[in-house]
Amino acid sequence: MNKITRAKDLMIPSVTTGPIAGSAKTYSSPEGHAGIRVPFREIQLSPSSGEGAFRVYDPSGPYTDANATLDLEAGLPRIREAWIKERAVEAYDGRNVKPEDNGNVSGAAAARVFPNVPRPYRASLVAHGDSRSASRPPCADASSPSPRARGEGRGEGQPSAQALDGGNASHSTPRATVQASAPHPNPLPVRTGRGDLALNGAGDSAAGSRPPAQCITQYEFAKAGIVTQEMIYVAHRENLGRAAALERAKAAIGDGDSFGAAIPEHITPEFVRDEIARGRAIIPANINHAELEPMIIGRNFLVKVNANIGNSAVTSSVEEEVEKMVWAIRWGADTVMDLSTGRNIHTTREWILRNSPVPIGTVPIYQALEKCGGDPVKLTWELYRDTLIEQCEQGVDYFTIHAGVRLPYVPLTANRVTGIVSRGGSIMAKWCLAHHRESFLYERFEEICDLMRQYDVSFSLGDGLRPGSIADANDRAQFAELETLGELTQIAWKKGCQVMIEGPGHVPMHKIKVNMEKQLRECGEAPFYTLGPLTTDIAPGYDHITSGIGAAMIGWFGTAMLCYVTPKEHLGLPNRDDVKTGVITYRLAAHAADLAKGHPAAQLRDDAVSRARFDFRWEDQFNLSLDPDTARSFHDETLPKDAHKVAHFCSMCGPKFCSMKITQDVRDYAARLNEAAVELAEETTQIDPDSGLDADAREAGMREMSEKFKEMGGQVYVKSE
Amino acid sequence: MNKITRAKDLMIPSVTTGPIAGSAKTYSSPEGHAGIRVPFREIQLSPSSGEGAFRVYDPSGPYTDANATLDLEAGLPRIREAWIKERAVEAYDGRNVKPEDNGNVSGAAAARVFPNVPRPYRASLVAHGDSRSASRPPCADASSPSPRARGEGRGEGQPSAQALDGGNASHSTPRATVQASAPHPNPLPVRTGRGDLALNGAGDSAAGSRPPAQCITQYEFAKAGIVTQEMIYVAHRENLGRAAALERAKAAIGDGDSFGAAIPEHITPEFVRDEIARGRAIIPANINHAELEPMIIGRNFLVKVNANIGNSAVTSSVEEEVEKMVWAIRWGADTVMDLSTGRNIHTTREWILRNSPVPIGTVPIYQALEKCGGDPVKLTWELYRDTLIEQCEQGVDYFTIHAGVRLPYVPLTANRVTGIVSRGGSIMAKWCLAHHRESFLYERFEEICDLMRQYDVSFSLGDGLRPGSIADANDRAQFAELETLGELTQIAWKKGCQVMIEGPGHVPMHKIKVNMEKQLRECGEAPFYTLGPLTTDIAPGYDHITSGIGAAMIGWFGTAMLCYVTPKEHLGLPNRDDVKTGVITYRLAAHAADLAKGHPAAQLRDDAVSRARFDFRWEDQFNLSLDPDTARSFHDETLPKDAHKVAHFCSMCGPKFCSMKITQDVRDYAARLNEAAVELAEETTQIDPDSGLDADAREAGMREMSEKFKEMGGQVYVKSE
Repeated sequence: MNKITRAKDLMIPSVTTGPIAGSAKTYSSPEGHAGIRVPFREIQLSPSSGEGAFRVYDPSGPYTDANATLDLEAGLPRIREAWIKERAVEAYDGRNVKPEDNGNVSGAAAARVFPNVPRPYRASLVAHGDSRSASRPPCADASSPSPRARGEGRGEGQPSAQALDGGNASHSTPRATVQASAPHPNPLPVRTGRGDLALNGAGDSAAGSRPPAQCITQYEFAKAGIVTQEMIYVAHRENLGRAAALERAKAAIGDGDSFGAAIPEHITPEFVRDEIARGRAIIPANINHAELEPMIIGRNFLVKVNANIGNSAVTSSVEEEVEKMVWAIRWGADTVMDLSTGRNIHTTREWILRNSPVPIGTVPIYQALEKCGGDPVKLTWELYRDTLIEQCEQGVDYFTIHAGVRLPYVPLTANRVTGIVSRGGSIMAKWCLAHHRESFLYERFEEICDLMRQYDVSFSLGDGLRPGSIADANDRAQFAELETLGELTQIAWKKGCQVMIEGPGHVPMHKIKVNMEKQLRECGEAPFYTLGPLTTDIAPGYDHITSGIGAAMIGWFGTAMLCYVTPKEHLGLPNRDDVKTGVITYRLAAHAADLAKGHPAAQLRDDAVSRARFDFRWEDQFNLSLDPDTARSFHDETLPKDAHKVAHFCSMCGPKFCSMKITQDVRDYAARLNEAAVELAEETTQIDPDSGLDADAREAGMREMSEKFKEMGGQVYVKSE
Repeated sequence: MNKITRAKDLMIPSVTTGPIAGSAKTYSSPEGHAGIRVPFREIQLSPSSGEGAFRVYDPSGPYTDANATLDLEAGLPRIREAWIKERAVEAYDGRNVKPEDNGNVSGAAAARVFPNVPRPYRASLVAHGDSRSASRPPCADASSPSPRARGEGRGEGQPSAQALDGGNASHSTPRATVQASAPHPNPLPVRTGRGDLALNGAGDSAAGSRPPAQCITQYEFAKAGIVTQEMIYVAHRENLGRAAALERAKAAIGDGDSFGAAIPEHITPEFVRDEIARGRAIIPANINHAELEPMIIGRNFLVKVNANIGNSAVTSSVEEEVEKMVWAIRWGADTVMDLSTGRNIHTTREWILRNSPVPIGTVPIYQALEKCGGDPVKLTWELYRDTLIEQCEQGVDYFTIHAGVRLPYVPLTANRVTGIVSRGGSIMAKWCLAHHRESFLYERFEEICDLMRQYDVSFSLGDGLRPGSIADANDRAQFAELETLGELTQIAWKKGCQVMIEGPGHVPMHKIKVNMEKQLRECGEAPFYTLGPLTTDIAPGYDHITSGIGAAMIGWFGTAMLCYVTPKEHLGLPNRDDVKTGVITYRLAAHAADLAKGHPAAQLRDDAVSRARFDFRWEDQFNLSLDPDTARSFHDETLPKDAHKVAHFCSMCGPKFCSMKITQDVRDYAARLNEAAVELAEETTQIDPDSGLDADAREAGMREMSEKFKEMGGQVYVKSE
C-alpha cells in the first residue's frame, strides 16, 4: 500500500491506495448499458485450484484500482453527473459558506478548503402552467397528510406549518426518458412501467421559498415506473455471483430462513424499481453527490454495513477523516456517516464527499448545534433548515433526523438506567422540555421532506430514544418512537422521499427479533438500519463483538444495513485500526446474515475459502478472506517461511500429523469404495434433522445395512486392482 | 501484574499473578459448611456509586489472590484430598512413567519433571463377599447393555470385549456419609436421598485387571441420593448474586427465553444433585485432581467457557503452556483442555494439573498417536488403554473420546467440502479404514467406562465428524455420529459415569438451533459442549468473532459450555494475546447467553456497568468490565489524564456537548414533572411489543392524553417553585 502525499501542502489529505492483497479491480457493464461501469474486485486463485478468479462486491472505489489516476484536490470522477443533468434539475448558485459552518474557525486552525467545489443542482421548478394539472401524480401524494398525531402534545398550540394542499401536482414529462430496449452509450432513465413522472408539492416558503419542484427522487421515478441508471447499476452490482451460483451444480443455493423476505435468484432493474416503489429499498444518492457509485439498501438485497467517522471537539483532523473514509470503504463499508461535531465540519465534509464513492450520511442537528454554541435550547427551525440546505447542496446522501422524539415521550425515559443516549435524541428532548413545545423536527416534517426531495436526500429516521443499556431495551419510550417513525415514513413516501429507519442499540438476544418484526409492521417494510445491537453491556473494549452478535442476528431477521461498532465504543474515538476491526467485524456479521437468509450467492465464498483450506492453498485462503493481510500475518507468526505457504500442514498439528491430510487419505479410500456401498451407507443413515427419525426405524436401517455389508463379502471396500 | 520467576531453574514455569485491576479475591462458605471455601472476585466501586462491592464468579484460582502463597513446584493446595480420602478410594503405586509418555525426549530437550508427583487414588475394590448382593444398585445398572448397534458394521466379526454381566453389584456403605443437617468443619459426603451407594461392574481384565470397584463418581453419588462436598461447593458458587438480585426491587429478574431449560431462582445442593442424577449436569472432577475448585456444567447453570492450550510439534514449551493455563483462567476460562501433540506431553500435563484450579480435559488419542510414531494405523486398544490409565492417574478431569466415529459413517464424509476436520475423528476414521474394522473406541466403550469411573473422569463424547465448513453443516455424517453419541451416553450413565457431548463446528445461523434440539433429544439432555459454531468460513483472523456469534446463540438455546476459538483459528497456534482475546470473547458470548436465557442474576452486572457509564464513573466502568486493562487503555488513548477519569464527558462528544449530560438534565426536569403527568404519559403510550397494538386505540389514547395536558393548563410540567 502506498500513500499519496503531496509535499506542497500538508493539509491535502493523503489516503491509502492500491489493490487489496491478491486481487484486482475490474469493471463490468450490464448488457446493453456499456456506459454503466460497475466495479468489482477479483481475487486471483492459484492455478492448482482449477478455479477462475473469484469476484466479490467492492465498495472501495477507485482507491483500490491500480490503474486509477487519483487527485484528491479534483475529487473522484463525477460519473453520475451526465445522468443527473438529463433529469429535471437545474444548477444554481448555492448558499454561501458562512463562518459558523466551520465553527468560526480561522487562521492556522482552519482546514484547507476543497479547491474545486462544484455548483449545486436541485430539482427544477414546475413550469407555472403545469402547476395545476388535472392528473393526480402517481409518485407523490400532494394531498399532504398531517402526521397522524400531529399537533398533539403541542401544549401551547403555537402555529404549525401550513398543510400543503394538493393542487401543486402536475403531469410533466421528465426531460430524459428513453425506452428500456434502446441501448445507449450513456443511458438515461428508462421508462418501463405505466406511470408518469410527476411533481410534488414543495409547499410554503420554508423549502427555500420555491414553488413546487419536479420529481427527481429515485422513489418518485420508481413510482412512476421509470428505471433509472442507478437502478440498472445496483441490479448489476447485486447480481454478483448469482449466475455462477446457478451454473455450478454443486453450489448450495440458499437454503436459509429469510423470515418473509423475498430474495430473487436474479436481480433485474425492474425488481430494483419495484422494491424502491414499494418503499422496501432505497438508493441513497443525492444529485449533488455525482461521484457516487450507486448502491441499494433493502431487505431483499445484500446486507450492507455503515461505518461512522467524524472529528470531535477533542481530537482528529480533516486529513484523518478523509483517510478514515477511504480506509473504511477499503475494508468493506458500504456507506459512511460523517458525525463530526468539532470545527471545520463543512470543509471536512466537502473533502469527504468529493472523494467518496459511497453514500455519505450525516446527522444535521450536530452541525446545527455547533452553530448555536452547543446549546440545544438555542436551536431554531431556521438554523436547522439552513443547515439542511447547506448539506443538501454539498451532496450528503442521507440525513439522520430524529423527528420521532416527541414531547410526550420524553418523560418515558426518566426511569431508564441510561436515559437518552442518542445525541440527536437528547438534543431534541432538551429542546422540547426547555421550550415546553413539540419537536420542531416533528412539526416541520413536511417542510423537511419538501426540501430533501429537491436533492433526493434519503431519510434515515433516527431512533433518538434507542436503549443505551440492556435494562432499557424494548421499553415504552423506544417503541413509542418507532411507531411515530412509522407515521413519518408514510408522510415521507407521500412526499416522494426515500426512507430508512434507524434501530437500537443495546438489546439482549431474546429481545432482538421483536424489534425487527415491529419495525417491519410499523414502518411498512421500509429498510431497517440498526446500530448493533449490543447483546450485553459488560464488555467495553469488545463492543464490536457484543454488537456483532446482535448485528448478525438482526441482519438475518431482516435488517438491511448494519451500523458498525468499533472496539472503542463507549471509550474513545476509533483510530485507523479500530475502524478496520469494526468494518471487518460487521462485514462478517452481514455475510453470516446473508448466508442464514439464504442469499443465493452468499455461500459461494465460504465454499471457496473452505476448498482452499482443505487443499492447503494458503495464499488462496488468505486472499479469499475478508482481511488477507491479517490472515497472512497470523499464519506467518508461527510459520513465516514461504515454503510453509505451500506446505501441506499447518502449525496447529505440525508436519507429522494432520487431520486434513488424513481426511484426504479417507477420501482416497472412499473413492475406491464400491459405489453401491456408498449409496447404501447414505440411504441407511439418512436423517431428517427436523423429524427426529424414529430410533427403531434407524436401528432397522442399520441392521439392514450390516446385513448387506455381509452379503458383499464382509468387505467395506472393494480392492481397486 | 508480577511474574514469579525462580532464577535457580529456568525450566520452572513462571506465571502471571496478582488481582485483576480494581478487584480482590474473597472466599465465602455455604451456611453450615465452614470448611468449604468458595472463591469469588469482588470489584470495588467508588464511594459515589452508593453501591457495595460487586461480586463476580471467579475461576482464576489463587493466582489472583494477593494473599496467596504460591509455589509452582509444590502445586496448589489439594483442597479436595480430605474429601476424597473419606470416600471408597485407595492410594496405590501408579503406572510408571515411560519414555514414550514424553515422546522419548531426553537430555536438554526434556522438560524439568514436576518434583512432587502425588500418589494416585482409585476407587477401592468391592470386598469379595459383597460382590453378589441381592439389591440392585440405584446408581449404576450392572446389566451392562451393549451399544444398540453394537457389532454392526464390524465386517470381519473379530472378537469384541465380553459383555459385562450383572452380579458385580453390591450394597455397600460408603465410608463417609453424614447427615446434611450436621455441620462439620470438614464436611463429608452428605446423604439426603433414599438411595444407597452402590458399585458397578468393573468387568473384565481390561480395566486394569481389577474386580469391581466401589462407587465414587459424582453421578453415582447423585443417583444414590448423596450430596457431595463438590455439589455443595458448586451450589454456593452458582448462587452468586441471586440473593442480591432478589433483594433489589428494581433488578430485572430474568425475563429471557430458555427454550425449556429450568433455571431456578436459587440453587440448592439438592438441586445440583438432582441435575447430576438426571444426567443434565456434570462436575468434572477426577479424584486425582485434588487441587480442583469444583465447578458444574449444565444447561440450568451459568454457561461455561473452555480454553484450549497445548504445544505442538512445531512450537511452544512447558513453561508457556502452564502460563497459558493460568492466563486463560485469569480472564475467565472455566475449564482448560491440554491438546498437546508434541514432546514432553506427560510432563507438561503434570505441571498443569498440579497447578490448575479448573478442570483439565484432554484428548487421549493425541498422546496415544504420539506413542506410535504418529501413525494412526498402528494404534491399538492396549496402547490407548495404557494412555487412559496414565492420564486418569495424573488427574485429568474429562476425556474427549471419539467413540461415535463408526466405520459405516466414514464414507458419508467422502463428498464433503472439508471432509473430517476433527483430529480425533480423522485418526479413528483412518484406523477403521486401514483395519477394515469398527472403531475400537466404540467396541471397547464399556471397558473405557469401567476404567474412567474408578477415577471419576467425565466423558466428553467427541464429535469427530463435526462439519469443518458451512457447506458440511448438519449433514448426515454429523447427525449419524450424534445419534451414536446418544446411545453411548446411555451406556456411560448405566456404568456410573458423567457425560457431556461435543458439538460443531461450522454452522450457519439458521442451522444452529436444530443442532441443540437434536442433541437434547438424542442425548437425553446430557450437557452440550460446542466449539463455536463458526457462522461463516470467510474470516480467518476473526474466527473468535465468527464463532462468538454462533456460541452466543447456541448458548442461549441450551449449550452448557462453549469451547473458545481464538483469532489464530485455522492459521496458527494462539499466543498469550490470542488466548486472552478468545477467552474474553467467549465470556461475553456466555454472558449474552445467560442474559437471553433469563438467568436470574445475569443482568445485575450489565446494570452495574450501565449505571457506572451513565454516572461517568469511568474507573467503575473499567473495573466492572470483562477486561478492565483493555477498557482503561482504550479510554486513555484519547483522554490519558487522570482528571479525565472523573470528567463528566468523554472523547466521543467532548466537554461542550454530551448526551449523557443532557439526559441528566432531562431527568432533572422529569423529576419535577407532576407525578400524574408521568403516569398518564406511561399509560397512554403503553405498548405491548408482541401485540402490535391497534393504531386507532393508540391514537385515541394519544388524543386523550393531549386533552388532559390541556386540562392541566397546557403545561407539560409544573413549575418547581
